[in-house]
Amino acid sequence: MMNVPLLVPTMLERAEKFFPKKQVISRTAEGKKTHTYKEIGERTRRLASALEKLGVKKGERVGTIAWNHHRHLESYFAIPGIGAVLHTINIRLAPNHISYIVNHAEDQVLLIDEDLLPLVESVKDELSTVKAFVIMTEKDSLPETRLQPVYHYEELLKEGNPSFEFVTDIDENEPAGMCYTSATTGNPKGVVYSHRGIVLHSMALGLADCSGLSENDVSMPVVPMFHVNAWGMPFAATWFGTTQVMPGPYFTPKIIAELIQSEKVTISAGVPTIWLGLLNELEQGNYDTSSITRILCGGSAAPKGMIKAFETKYKIPFVHAYGMTETSPLVVLSRLKSYQENLSDEERLDIRSKQGSLVPGVEMKVIGKDGDVAWDGQEMGELLLRGPWIASEYYKDERTTDAFRDGWLYTGDVVTVDEEGIIKIVDRTKDLVKSGGEWISSVDLENALMAHEAIFEAAVIAVPHEQWQERPIACVVLKDAYKEKVTKEEIYDFLKPQFAKWWLPDDILFLDTIPKTSVGKFLKRALRDQLKEHLTTQA
Amino acid sequence: MMNVPLLVPTMLERAEKFFPKKQVISRTAEGKKTHTYKEIGERTRRLASALEKLGVKKGERVGTIAWNHHRHLESYFAIPGIGAVLHTINIRLAPNHISYIVNHAEDQVLLIDEDLLPLVESVKDELSTVKAFVIMTEKDSLPETRLQPVYHYEELLKEGNPSFEFVTDIDENEPAGMCYTSATTGNPKGVVYSHRGIVLHSMALGLADCSGLSENDVSMPVVPMFHVNAWGMPFAATWFGTTQVMPGPYFTPKIIAELIQSEKVTISAGVPTIWLGLLNELEQGNYDTSSITRILCGGSAAPKGMIKAFETKYKIPFVHAYGMTETSPLVVLSRLKSYQENLSDEERLDIRSKQGSLVPGVEMKVIGKDGDVAWDGQEMGELLLRGPWIASEYYKDERTTDAFRDGWLYTGDVVTVDEEGIIKIVDRTKDLVKSGGEWISSVDLENALMAHEAIFEAAVIAVPHEQWQERPIACVVLKDAYKEKVTKEEIYDFLKPQFAKWWLPDDILFLDTIPKTSVGKFLKRALRDQLKEHLTTQA
Repeated sequence: MMNVPLLVPTMLERAEKFFPKKQVISRTAEGKKTHTYKEIGERTRRLASALEKLGVKKGERVGTIAWNHHRHLESYFAIPGIGAVLHTINIRLAPNHISYIVNHAEDQVLLIDEDLLPLVESVKDELSTVKAFVIMTEKDSLPETRLQPVYHYEELLKEGNPSFEFVTDIDENEPAGMCYTSATTGNPKGVVYSHRGIVLHSMALGLADCSGLSENDVSMPVVPMFHVNAWGMPFAATWFGTTQVMPGPYFTPKIIAELIQSEKVTISAGVPTIWLGLLNELEQGNYDTSSITRILCGGSAAPKGMIKAFETKYKIPFVHAYGMTETSPLVVLSRLKSYQENLSDEERLDIRSKQGSLVPGVEMKVIGKDGDVAWDGQEMGELLLRGPWIASEYYKDERTTDAFRDGWLYTGDVVTVDEEGIIKIVDRTKDLVKSGGEWISSVDLENALMAHEAIFEAAVIAVPHEQWQERPIACVVLKDAYKEKVTKEEIYDFLKPQFAKWWLPDDILFLDTIPKTSVGKFLKRALRDQLKEHLTTQA
Repeated sequence: MMNVPLLVPTMLERAEKFFPKKQVISRTAEGKKTHTYKEIGERTRRLASALEKLGVKKGERVGTIAWNHHRHLESYFAIPGIGAVLHTINIRLAPNHISYIVNHAEDQVLLIDEDLLPLVESVKDELSTVKAFVIMTEKDSLPETRLQPVYHYEELLKEGNPSFEFVTDIDENEPAGMCYTSATTGNPKGVVYSHRGIVLHSMALGLADCSGLSENDVSMPVVPMFHVNAWGMPFAATWFGTTQVMPGPYFTPKIIAELIQSEKVTISAGVPTIWLGLLNELEQGNYDTSSITRILCGGSAAPKGMIKAFETKYKIPFVHAYGMTETSPLVVLSRLKSYQENLSDEERLDIRSKQGSLVPGVEMKVIGKDGDVAWDGQEMGELLLRGPWIASEYYKDERTTDAFRDGWLYTGDVVTVDEEGIIKIVDRTKDLVKSGGEWISSVDLENALMAHEAIFEAAVIAVPHEQWQERPIACVVLKDAYKEKVTKEEIYDFLKPQFAKWWLPDDILFLDTIPKTSVGKFLKRALRDQLKEHLTTQA
């Protein structure tokens, strides 16, 4: 077979050649902007040539600090298109972590959304490698800024070469992208994506048995482009000539609902908190969401009640998926097998509310206390993954040795696997409640709590306990309509029939809000810190 | 990213682990036999260990001379599973070509269907490398044969190891399969498929925008497993856990129609002559073919009338595709773009009767007399292809230099490309009629002829002509009901409104049959030889 490498820029080239009229629709501060793939292609080539002129060399990193929009999409292809590395920076990280990762990645250039300038300005003096700041703005002139030297994105494009030829003499295993993921303690850890990994992951997104992304779709990644490449959707959607809708900055559930309706979005992707918000919005407003053929949900476990509400009330098929920054991210996706289609509604919902089974191209192992666990839906073990779109290390980081061992990624996720090979995330290894030598899944308790009609959000954490080592505590946020109308006892009564007595939380606390990580997951560490003496103090 | 190679046996491992209950249904001489993927997995491992015991080493070739059935499927994975090379042998080749390719590939072992033994026995004395003959038979004992040493497939399996571990320490670029393709003159040319090529091609088959092969499908490759790996379907279907129906030996259109009905086949693939036969059968019988969601048709151009008949009369979506032995084969496939769905029935049929556009992962060029042709649907040029599942050479063959140049495969197919990037095969470079310095497409004339209600098959060939260099002659086979009831003049009257006068054939000959190649394509060379003096003699 020909020695033709799998390279990121060839994906854009396919859109330019075969789908020049198809569109990318961006919600910006100035309203909706539409570009065809022909235009995106030319603009991307201009940007690529401009980055070369700014002195970016093959293998060097270029950072982006930006929302989901067409300019960010252009940088997705322009940076790997010159053989450099697209470093998407999570804007929700703490400033000291942002300066850490820019320096650690040795970013040469930063592409920054105008409204995110203050974030960069606040850490400007810490940045030791950046040679140029490029401002992505709708306006004709540059905003005032302390950053130096500073360039106007559109001005650079004007001077750029619309026929610039993307790099071809590069090994497919060379880096094309990178993303840092928060660590429980310490600085974020860098994950590097190769050209090969991104192309293969894009192919997986197009498989009929995975998300089946197609030219026929209208794809709207709600998951940020600064987080695991928006789950790879912008890459794959461009390759397939899919219409893309970019929700832009500071969107609300209302904006998401309106975009679905106006742009006839067929596929979207995001974390459960996004979809909880949308569900809430759909219940209040009157939207036509009939264009949607599937919503992908990952990042943390989706409550079963939410899946059911989307599917039965709004006829929106809801696809549970699982992945990590380290896994590009798609590795597990929930789809019924053909012979499961005849099961009852409830049984099908039970299956679909699990994370799902392994997508073609990756391999797994589940390791419990005594080696490989039984596929019985009961025995818990840590999920190990292996495959061509799974990281092999953290970038220049000693913590590599914790997570990457013997050719496998140790995910830190505790799962069960049933007879059909369907994976259910039970907990993070560090969030499991280890009570008297037995394991209690905080996630199972949370899902049960969130199925209560009065409860908006719930987090269950392990709190040190003298006799049992650890015991669970539930932190609950009530829906506005139920505030101060529901008692602890009512919630205990609701849980009791569902769990063994020793699984029940030792306390249920009503909070106004649950602290979240930069990507919208529950920040359990903060709750654990806050409540670490809750049971000893009570006793 | 992890350095995990793309290897063929991992595709079977996925079926074993995640789809152990799904089935492979084989039509055999003894009736239908059903095996689960669990059983296929164990049997394949047994076969792999048996082949090792027979002395097959990594990189060596093992030949198969067999129809489409579960044992052939087992060899598809067992042979690459020990790092050896699956050499599928086209049983329709002339005996001297069969002995040539067995010797040229240096096959160490041959796996032979019992009913095909005479074919091998007839060339036995010419075979210089084969160390063992394995007979695939339904019977308990070995048939009488002159071949030596000879083994019983099922006996070998009995002694084999059901837990045999497939090879993992192999580079993905190592060969996994090979297939010889007939040449216009001389011996067949060998094409080698790498593990990487087969896995990537399988992924393409699963893309929603290509054939979208899925676990939900019931896949029946009618195209033989001895021809370009049955277009890769057995590999991909196994990977996705798809139910497979193998039509076995000596099938007829009736058998195909019955299998579609009884097994609820959803996807099938084959050459136009197969589908012409099926269409004929459907017109005579009363079959339920409602399970079919698409038929893939390739190998040569499908007449528009046939596509229309399948789609309008039988509601069977008909997907035109294009490929070659050298291209694994899928590279071009006909699918409407989303914005073409609103066109009229006739316009959509026009688009779908072209070969289609390039599948993700491969690149093309179309080179006419003056370099790249315009994408105007008019200008003709030779199609060049490049990609990771396209061969880079003919195996140990000097003819490599003709077809593989500057990193591209010169397909020998003349095409036009329209504004949408949709390819239409106009002719083989060697079948084009070059008349007075202009090009006449034999395929266009054939398609027009085959749309005539009285015509079953038609081939148009170039015949030497004193004044014009070459002129077209049409060879026509009438449907039984129309034999001797249609005149040459009636057919000229039918053609005249459709073509410029100088395109009209110089003669129309009524034949009983059109000679075909070993894979069912028109053997125009034979007609050309036969008719080479037709116009000069007439004059």
